[in-house]
Amino acid sequence: MSIAYLCRYDAATAAEELEILRAVIGEPIVMGPPHGDLDEAALAAVEIAVVANPAPGILARMPGLGLIQSLWAGVDGLLADRTIPPAVPLARLVDPLLATAMAEAVVAHVMALHRQLPAYREQQAVRRWQRLAQPFAAECPVGILGLGEMGRAAIDLLRPLGFPILGWSRSAGADALARLQAEARIVVNLLPLTAETCHILAAPFLSRLRAGAALINFGRGGHQVVPDILAALDAGRLSHAVLDVFETEPLPDDSPLWRHPKVTVTPHVAAETDAVSAARCTAANIAAFRAGRPVAGLVDRAKGY
Amino acid sequence: MSIAYLCRYDAATAAEELEILRAVIGEPIVMGPPHGDLDEAALAAVEIAVVANPAPGILARMPGLGLIQSLWAGVDGLLADRTIPPAVPLARLVDPLLATAMAEAVVAHVMALHRQLPAYREQQAVRRWQRLAQPFAAECPVGILGLGEMGRAAIDLLRPLGFPILGWSRSAGADALARLQAEARIVVNLLPLTAETCHILAAPFLSRLRAGAALINFGRGGHQVVPDILAALDAGRLSHAVLDVFETEPLPDDSPLWRHPKVTVTPHVAAETDAVSAARCTAANIAAFRAGRPVAGLVDRAKGY
Repeated sequence: MSIAYLCRYDAATAAEELEILRAVIGEPIVMGPPHGDLDEAALAAVEIAVVANPAPGILARMPGLGLIQSLWAGVDGLLADRTIPPAVPLARLVDPLLATAMAEAVVAHVMALHRQLPAYREQQAVRRWQRLAQPFAAECPVGILGLGEMGRAAIDLLRPLGFPILGWSRSAGADALARLQAEARIVVNLLPLTAETCHILAAPFLSRLRAGAALINFGRGGHQVVPDILAALDAGRLSHAVLDVFETEPLPDDSPLWRHPKVTVTPHVAAETDAVSAARCTAANIAAFRAGRPVAGLVDRAKGY
Repeated sequence: MSIAYLCRYDAATAAEELEILRAVIGEPIVMGPPHGDLDEAALAAVEIAVVANPAPGILARMPGLGLIQSLWAGVDGLLADRTIPPAVPLARLVDPLLATAMAEAVVAHVMALHRQLPAYREQQAVRRWQRLAQPFAAECPVGILGLGEMGRAAIDLLRPLGFPILGWSRSAGADALARLQAEARIVVNLLPLTAETCHILAAPFLSRLRAGAALINFGRGGHQVVPDILAALDAGRLSHAVLDVFETEPLPDDSPLWRHPKVTVTPHVAAETDAVSAARCTAANIAAFRAGRPVAGLVDRAKGY
């Protein structure tokens, strides 16, 4: 029985991550394709697959598989591979450091929007000396879509700053969402990408936001409909959009988002996985799995997260 | 005995502020020059002067003056008028709302520097998709120069975010300053402007900072030596400077600060006085003065704040 590591990073990144996993988990780990060859006997011996964007179809060729452990928090890409054995437990990464990184990114961009840093930046470019409105955090309700580890970590950092918080998750229902849309000055998307949340950040959603609200998407590119966001910005309904994720990454050169004065583009950096911390969380989950204890981050395939 | 209001705002702003003061304090207030004329009898009747940048020399012409109450937190401009009667108590504005506004500005710019928002903004301008380092707040010591109401309010907001804090004030001594300079990744100036702190943000100070530190000046323009800051930026010793205050305001069109890629210029907006809140604090101080109770924000003329 063995542990296999499967990713489609470049060879150097893959080798580096494998080394960290071996050191932290403290046992041999085989490298799967495309970076390593596994024959049928080796595939049959895999007990645990540690994955970051594995090649489609490969997990279906491991008849002895007992656990699929993702090194990423989002498993929407993984679940798009319909050949993954449905009965094998699949765990997404639950890493407190990743949640902290995300929460800090949320605070950075919420505070920047709250204190109008992008608008002052535009003024600086044309040497304009002009004071803008200076609201207080207490007057600026922040809506958080998604109340998982990341949403909760973000709320824990935003609350002491004085922001009224409006949280929403799938189980909270339509009334709670309507209230968030009506009241929030800044809306932060941290939802998992599922069939239900795909393209949620589109015209019907945006049209219900408070006039002049700002939007931050730190979820997935699949959550947003770019033309609808641009239309809401140009109509003044949205005052600003901070987008960290895109359906095609890197964001293509010809995307109008790069140059839009009311759009902040960041290169999918809201929360980067720390390889050592992710390896530690993986090691803990492997130990739990082997001991028959509950595994963290077990994915409900029906819900999609 | 009367209360006089003395400012050199434009006429409309002066009239608006006087109206708020009258409404909140609840008694007549006379408008002094340049917006109102006070004859010798009227000048002699002034018991309390409520001031925001009063005309030089005017306070010396009020023989019955018992209290000078500033509507600003910084009194360096006021103390530059050597004719102000030395025995009359002078109070600067101590307004919790002003401290909150300042603390929120500190958090906004500290978080922006911490998560490299200016660098990502530069990348966006040239459509570059590149991840930069992602440190955690816990790894980013923040130095706060000045531990008055504003410094303490800033620390109260920064600490729950996880930043290690290095505070310094005049009484803390040279060793504490050296430690702050050696360790802080981000240095925030909130000192009062006095003979001792004038031009503190100059080459000798900057040369002792940790390599790649960032500087935020939310104190006064007189704290900084612009050519020294530019030299430290160009040498890479400083990674970024956020400057909200300048010796000449508005910042002149020909200042190199406007266009420097590593300088953020904001138009003296870190903490704007809320006129109603300032009027309430003024009313409370007037009541304390008349009742013989301690007045908040009493300035030590020898220290200069």
